[in-house]
Amino acid sequence: MHTPAQDDRSRTIARLLITCADRPGIVAAVSQFIFSHGANITQLDQHSTDPEGGTLFMRLEFQTPHLDLGREALMAAFRTVVADPFEMRWTIQYAWPPKRLAVMVSRHEHCLMELLWRFSRGELPCEIAMVISNHPDLREAVERFGVPFHYVPVPRPDTGGGKAGAEGQALSLMDGKADGVVLARYMQILSPQFVAAAPGRIINIHHSFLPAFAGADPYRQAFQRGVKLIGATAHYVTEELDAGPIIFQDVAHVSHRHGVEDLKDMGRDLERQVLARAVRAHLEDRVIVHGNKTVVF
Amino acid sequence: MHTPAQDDRSRTIARLLITCADRPGIVAAVSQFIFSHGANITQLDQHSTDPEGGTLFMRLEFQTPHLDLGREALMAAFRTVVADPFEMRWTIQYAWPPKRLAVMVSRHEHCLMELLWRFSRGELPCEIAMVISNHPDLREAVERFGVPFHYVPVPRPDTGGGKAGAEGQALSLMDGKADGVVLARYMQILSPQFVAAAPGRIINIHHSFLPAFAGADPYRQAFQRGVKLIGATAHYVTEELDAGPIIFQDVAHVSHRHGVEDLKDMGRDLERQVLARAVRAHLEDRVIVHGNKTVVF
Amino acid sequence: MHTPAQDDRSRTIARLLITCADRPGIVAAVSQFIFSHGANITQLDQHSTDPEGGTLFMRLEFQTPHLDLGREALMAAFRTVVADPFEMRWTIQYAWPPKRLAVMVSRHEHCLMELLWRFSRGELPCEIAMVISNHPDLREAVERFGVPFHYVPVPRPDTGGGKAGAEGQALSLMDGKADGVVLARYMQILSPQFVAAAPGRIINIHHSFLPAFAGADPYRQAFQRGVKLIGATAHYVTEELDAGPIIFQDVAHVSHRHGVEDLKDMGRDLERQVLARAVRAHLEDRVIVHGNKTVVF
Amino acid sequence: MHTPAQDDRSRTIARLLITCADRPGIVAAVSQFIFSHGANITQLDQHSTDPEGGTLFMRLEFQTPHLDLGREALMAAFRTVVADPFEMRWTIQYAWPPKRLAVMVSRHEHCLMELLWRFSRGELPCEIAMVISNHPDLREAVERFGVPFHYVPVPRPDTGGGKAGAEGQALSLMDGKADGVVLARYMQILSPQFVAAAPGRIINIHHSFLPAFAGADPYRQAFQRGVKLIGATAHYVTEELDAGPIIFQDVAHVSHRHGVEDLKDMGRDLERQVLARAVRAHLEDRVIVHGNKTVVF
Repeated sequence: MHTPAQDDRSRTIARLLITCADRPGIVAAVSQFIFSHGANITQLDQHSTDPEGGTLFMRLEFQTPHLDLGREALMAAFRTVVADPFEMRWTIQYAWPPKRLAVMVSRHEHCLMELLWRFSRGELPCEIAMVISNHPDLREAVERFGVPFHYVPVPRPDTGGGKAGAEGQALSLMDGKADGVVLARYMQILSPQFVAAAPGRIINIHHSFLPAFAGADPYRQAFQRGVKLIGATAHYVTEELDAGPIIFQDVAHVSHRHGVEDLKDMGRDLERQVLARAVRAHLEDRVIVHGNKTVVF
Repeated sequence: MHTPAQDDRSRTIARLLITCADRPGIVAAVSQFIFSHGANITQLDQHSTDPEGGTLFMRLEFQTPHLDLGREALMAAFRTVVADPFEMRWTIQYAWPPKRLAVMVSRHEHCLMELLWRFSRGELPCEIAMVISNHPDLREAVERFGVPFHYVPVPRPDTGGGKAGAEGQALSLMDGKADGVVLARYMQILSPQFVAAAPGRIINIHHSFLPAFAGADPYRQAFQRGVKLIGATAHYVTEELDAGPIIFQDVAHVSHRHGVEDLKDMGRDLERQVLARAVRAHLEDRVIVHGNKTVVF
Repeated sequence: MHTPAQDDRSRTIARLLITCADRPGIVAAVSQFIFSHGANITQLDQHSTDPEGGTLFMRLEFQTPHLDLGREALMAAFRTVVADPFEMRWTIQYAWPPKRLAVMVSRHEHCLMELLWRFSRGELPCEIAMVISNHPDLREAVERFGVPFHYVPVPRPDTGGGKAGAEGQALSLMDGKADGVVLARYMQILSPQFVAAAPGRIINIHHSFLPAFAGADPYRQAFQRGVKLIGATAHYVTEELDAGPIIFQDVAHVSHRHGVEDLKDMGRDLERQVLARAVRAHLEDRVIVHGNKTVVF
Repeated sequence: MHTPAQDDRSRTIARLLITCADRPGIVAAVSQFIFSHGANITQLDQHSTDPEGGTLFMRLEFQTPHLDLGREALMAAFRTVVADPFEMRWTIQYAWPPKRLAVMVSRHEHCLMELLWRFSRGELPCEIAMVISNHPDLREAVERFGVPFHYVPVPRPDTGGGKAGAEGQALSLMDGKADGVVLARYMQILSPQFVAAAPGRIINIHHSFLPAFAGADPYRQAFQRGVKLIGATAHYVTEELDAGPIIFQDVAHVSHRHGVEDLKDMGRDLERQVLARAVRAHLEDRVIVHGNKTVVF
């Protein structure tokens, strides 16, 4: 599981992700195909919701240096020989070049800093292509890592117009330059139009153990309810706020001694860890979305 | 924190629980009072929501063998000298005789067995006075521990009448014989009348990390939402279902590999641990209820 | 992961465990073999220590109702077609009939009770064939579950002879009746002769996070060192005390408030959970031993 | 528990730490003393190893704005009226001015960065007075936070002389400028002379769950033993390597899938959290050292 970014071999890693109706012969067909074209399977994970009439999910990681086909030809051959006969939903992802992420943030910098810092150490196999913020405050902190910073203010609703323009500007900045988006505590609700138009998937960090305390100010909600644990949830963004497929969650125990500010303090640590872990799983092509749920291999 | 039930000294342990507006001099007044009457403070916990204008919670554990007053006289003196001047809400609890619990259960025996087993080992400083169930199945398992078992069937709603009668019967059984009630997976909604009339507090175990998945079949709800952790919550019962003050919660990580039955399997372990821990805190007089929240010292 | 014991399908589940030098083509060869004989792969896990020059571990779970070969013939065919060409160390295990365990215990009953209770609920896919103890105390508790109890006293060293005789008696009792042994807090050091002669593997629960606090009275050692967490370790027994391959470990946070007796209280909960989890992984053929380490799929 | 550094009230917070033989009347005497001089007790924690013949530990936090004595006079009065009669070991610490820490580091920057980043956010109630390193690499990263960086190379043993000189240079740099030292992965063994001469206590982060895997390269040791969890330990440094009083520990679950590099990756996250938590407890005067153990309130 060591991050391939630190490893020359990462340049030759490919991952095949498959979803299809389960039936006998799938593993044999897929592994035979990969082997016959000169690749070596280095990881294989599969999960079936039910061997009879269930759905099969599979992730294969394989090494391509001795592959006898180019990327296009490999896809064409796989479609004909394996994917179409088994009616698969599938994709082949390559570790190289690394995915390019755009990170959107407001004023809370802890999640952003965690991502930039892990990125700078080679712990996240990606390129952070840009940071977009509706506040100018974090420019210096971002540019220090050699990452472009774009200030895209979102006008207040009562001043008319506004949010659509800001979203359009963000989309223009990402156009052709990002393969995915991370909302690292971006405190704006995104329009369905933005979600549909954004490049690749959007990952959000919500500061509660969803579905508890969806919506605004979850630490205050948690404090008022008197829960004995707080949480953080990383999920893909869908049209419905805080309801998209969950990638990873974690919690910490709290007590009556913790006020709202303490919960925020402790929550920051959770958010950083949970978001970083989810982003890494996403970058390593470990996540298959199925309906409103995820398979994370 | 070792359970006093295993210890001769438990017979002389008293606990003073206080809630009042915070202001200077409270600790001095309380500790001076206890000391002046010959008792030794062995534990003191306090928490203030805010030193200026906040609420103070305090728990003192003290040893009574050299106390110069009887129980009644001690209460009268404390009221006059300390409690009234500081306008305290307060109680003095004694570790001896141990509290008597009535346990209500339906068909799932895991929480009940955990309580009975810990009780039989001296790990729960209480007497389990009786088990009341709306099914006859667990009689033998309960009586094996020397605990009386009462089968109190709850008629199905469509057969008319019923639940009120069952609740009345349960209250009669507990009358004068129980100081508190534990719902160890009792799958019936209790009426506000029962909650009001029951002896002492009622502790319930809910099989989710509340407030997520309140109501019926929380493991199925969790599975359908695709959460990455499941939980259990022990709380005091109030009129509003699953909304009472939380005593303790815990969670376990789950993945796409776990079906609903797996969640139930894993959840059983959580429920047993969470309920046992909450019951023990309750029995050791560690819990102060304040509004809809708890302070657990 | 739901326990197959509760499921009719468990009668047709087989598991293939493989260890061999990693090289291209293994997954294809194995899965093609299974498929070609009419079985359906329902789970496949693999791990390679290094795709170049590393060791490959694989676990396949497959359904046998449409298998075209008997058990003997399947093994012969697999050996010829797959195992010998790839120089594999391998085994095929069947979920039916369930493995038969002998449990050895001294006076602490918590681990034993946890196993018996899970067994009685169908949570452990095994038969508990017998309990052997060097104390007579737990006979009634064991026989209540319909499990034979054998009292095999171990003479004190100073009375001469002794331990070898007791071990021999235990081996006789297990002969032909057990496929594996669980030491559920058996407070006797076993001789290398016993370890070698025992049927199948021996699983032990040690009450510390090994390798810390090996040997006697680990909770006292932990208290004296002032650690801030205590642990439990389930491992296979080898000749060297407390040094065998670890299957599962867990810990709990402790503080200065916990005396040695508190650590024992909290540790019991850990021990029960850790041992039950390890035994279940063992029974589901999820564990491959390699040198002094385990792969747990 | 919210960090006082973010709070005006922090300027008036004082903490009284006491260790003495337990006997009746201590809480009354201490709280009466504090109250009678116009201070308000806002937190009080105590722990007794045994009410009869045990040792009592106490931490009081009190507010000083209405105190009727200066710092010197308060100490003199407390000594006479309370401390000497009860034969206490005691200290009064003030939250203002904040403690000044010197951080020593080699090449691994993760722990250092975590401290600097929390310091810059006001999450650590201290001043980071300087960073001393035996490598020049981290100068820019440190100076960016406005913290002085000193490169103090440690000559290789075979080049003669050396370590004593480096230690002396570090002590000179800290002289009068630091109240405590944090070893944030400083990969040099310190001499007993340095430990004795350093200002205040020295906190070290060791990358294992001590006492397991003391000494060099603990992640490799953990990998080779095949443990199923890795840990980190923050402790005060004493003459004996890795054997000082433990302040905080935590662990993470690992599996056969994790190679040594993965353990280091995961371990970095543990080390950052564990060290930050221990340093904060130290700065808030929550830690009492007693023999080779700590009480952490």
